[in-house]
Amino acid sequence: MGYPDSFEGFTVDSAKTWNQFHRSELKPKPFGDSDIDVEIECCGVCGSDVHTVTGGWGEFEGPLCVGHEIVGRAVRVGKDVEKIHEGDRVGVGAQVWACLECDVCKSGNENYCPKWVDTYNAKYPDGSTAHGGWANYVRAHEYFTFKIPDALPSHVAAPLLCAGITTYSPLVRAGVGPGKTVGVIGIGGLGHLALQWSAALGAETYALTHSPGKKEDALKLGAKDVIVTADENFAEGHKFKFDFILSCADVAHEFDLQQYFSLLKVGGQFHMVGLGDHPLKEIHPMMFTTNAVKLTGSHLGNHQEMEAMLQLAADKGVKPLVETLELGEAGCKEAVERVKESKVRYRFTLVGFDKAFGRK
Amino acid sequence: MGYPDSFEGFTVDSAKTWNQFHRSELKPKPFGDSDIDVEIECCGVCGSDVHTVTGGWGEFEGPLCVGHEIVGRAVRVGKDVEKIHEGDRVGVGAQVWACLECDVCKSGNENYCPKWVDTYNAKYPDGSTAHGGWANYVRAHEYFTFKIPDALPSHVAAPLLCAGITTYSPLVRAGVGPGKTVGVIGIGGLGHLALQWSAALGAETYALTHSPGKKEDALKLGAKDVIVTADENFAEGHKFKFDFILSCADVAHEFDLQQYFSLLKVGGQFHMVGLGDHPLKEIHPMMFTTNAVKLTGSHLGNHQEMEAMLQLAADKGVKPLVETLELGEAGCKEAVERVKESKVRYRFTLVGFDKAFGRK
Repeated sequence: MGYPDSFEGFTVDSAKTWNQFHRSELKPKPFGDSDIDVEIECCGVCGSDVHTVTGGWGEFEGPLCVGHEIVGRAVRVGKDVEKIHEGDRVGVGAQVWACLECDVCKSGNENYCPKWVDTYNAKYPDGSTAHGGWANYVRAHEYFTFKIPDALPSHVAAPLLCAGITTYSPLVRAGVGPGKTVGVIGIGGLGHLALQWSAALGAETYALTHSPGKKEDALKLGAKDVIVTADENFAEGHKFKFDFILSCADVAHEFDLQQYFSLLKVGGQFHMVGLGDHPLKEIHPMMFTTNAVKLTGSHLGNHQEMEAMLQLAADKGVKPLVETLELGEAGCKEAVERVKESKVRYRFTLVGFDKAFGRK
Repeated sequence: MGYPDSFEGFTVDSAKTWNQFHRSELKPKPFGDSDIDVEIECCGVCGSDVHTVTGGWGEFEGPLCVGHEIVGRAVRVGKDVEKIHEGDRVGVGAQVWACLECDVCKSGNENYCPKWVDTYNAKYPDGSTAHGGWANYVRAHEYFTFKIPDALPSHVAAPLLCAGITTYSPLVRAGVGPGKTVGVIGIGGLGHLALQWSAALGAETYALTHSPGKKEDALKLGAKDVIVTADENFAEGHKFKFDFILSCADVAHEFDLQQYFSLLKVGGQFHMVGLGDHPLKEIHPMMFTTNAVKLTGSHLGNHQEMEAMLQLAADKGVKPLVETLELGEAGCKEAVERVKESKVRYRFTLVGFDKAFGRK
């Protein structure tokens, strides 16, 4: 078999062999009238990929092909597809399907549809499997496939499809803009984008990091100043300062949340998008009485936010700082190992797909 | 000594003797130009009183006079007091002072002022002690003293000063009104008021209770329907239903929060005002990705909300269901014991202050 009946990807078999990738044949869902096949040019490496292959987010069935920051060419479009044409350069993020019929979808929240299908490690309602983008092709519903603006190189656009929307959506939903003061915790794959969005949206933006060494980068990325959280009393002098704090670190379980909460204005949000493997430290209802802070988190963003984000990136020059690695057994292994050890500044994109799959 | 140099109240000495009340002389703060002395007519009994005297919320120094749902007559007003006159019937709630100068106060959040002074078990910046309302007098800053509308009998108005504002403020801050769907958890001292506010504000209101026996009361208080949370799968059929859930039970530590969260629309609030003695069950950041629910809580309300609430109660007939008890050693003991055992439907007000203090 081969395309269009089967795809080929770099996969892992189990959490025990999480860094050992090998080629596997992947069976995509049946092609539907609203589906698009994308010949993949490159794909970002996301913390989610690592949480998944290591089993941190639960068990999985191998062989598993991860990757959900996909950029490539639309090579086949279903007859009902309206906005995407064959040959368009497009992106696919961490979600490939939702029912688009329920109240949740109709309220612009298809990223919370009870029937949502993730890009990988997920089943469609018909029982077929969704496969990720460390592969030659991906198949996705048109609502989850997005034109990439010309101003964005593919390897730079790729991380926007997950890390970008994950950080952009909560900021716009919270009304971040001029007159607001925003804190971004964790200057990594997510945080280095959050700083840029927040500044591009017009907010006074601060970086909170336990690594004093990241101060210079944070300032370049748009932070007005940096608060070093390695200092025991880091909150002193900053109480009631922020309207919104976006926690982009996946180590929130290590946080003294009461201290972080104290940084927020009354009714402010402590919003987690960095999702670790562990529960938070003990939370007492009384912790909310000091300033009525809202503890929350979110998952991706919706279609309209994705389009607006890609345009904002093109217009304002927001771009992930990307190191490229060659797709292959070695490249995939290096990617997940270095992300696991946080040895990346700030995002990997796997490239060289044509070579890996003997195309051209 | 005696009034105005000292007050007299019913007090407990320590958490070990939490239900043994005796008369003590209380030294009030020095009378200031913005202060008002209130000759107390009656005072509500609040869950906070019980959490405090039993030591659930921490240690305290005895003799302690609790009570922060106070109604009486203004008998002395400082020279700078503007809105209250001698002889006015007034109420004092759970806060008697804030700086009124900081950014928090100036943003209409004096109930979160870092220098706020509770009505009892609290010290003023000058070191003097604030004493509660199970006493003959209370002294409070005019900003925390409110005229009681004529339509509200004193013993009915009393619980509004804490239970009322605690439930009213989060509802109005969340924009509860027509078109919103609200759930109220716990049909007790707080919840039976929350149901009434929510309905009076125009929201479609549901009661969530573990006691099927409270269904009839809940419907009378304004609930459209009742969800019995004693059923293991109570959330089925109600997912993504509510814009706002107000948790009025002080047993949130026993809740399967994931199940409660599933009741909320995307971005909805799970808001705790019932504040127990124990931490919540384990919270994983991933719990917020299903619908981006906001977990929060609050503390009282501000001056403007208190005035609006009292007027709404007068206009719409919102009133706590009150059982009266006579102030005295026996009455105070019965009050705290029955509140601790949740044997009250739904609120106590201590009355008979004139008799207890030999007045008239």
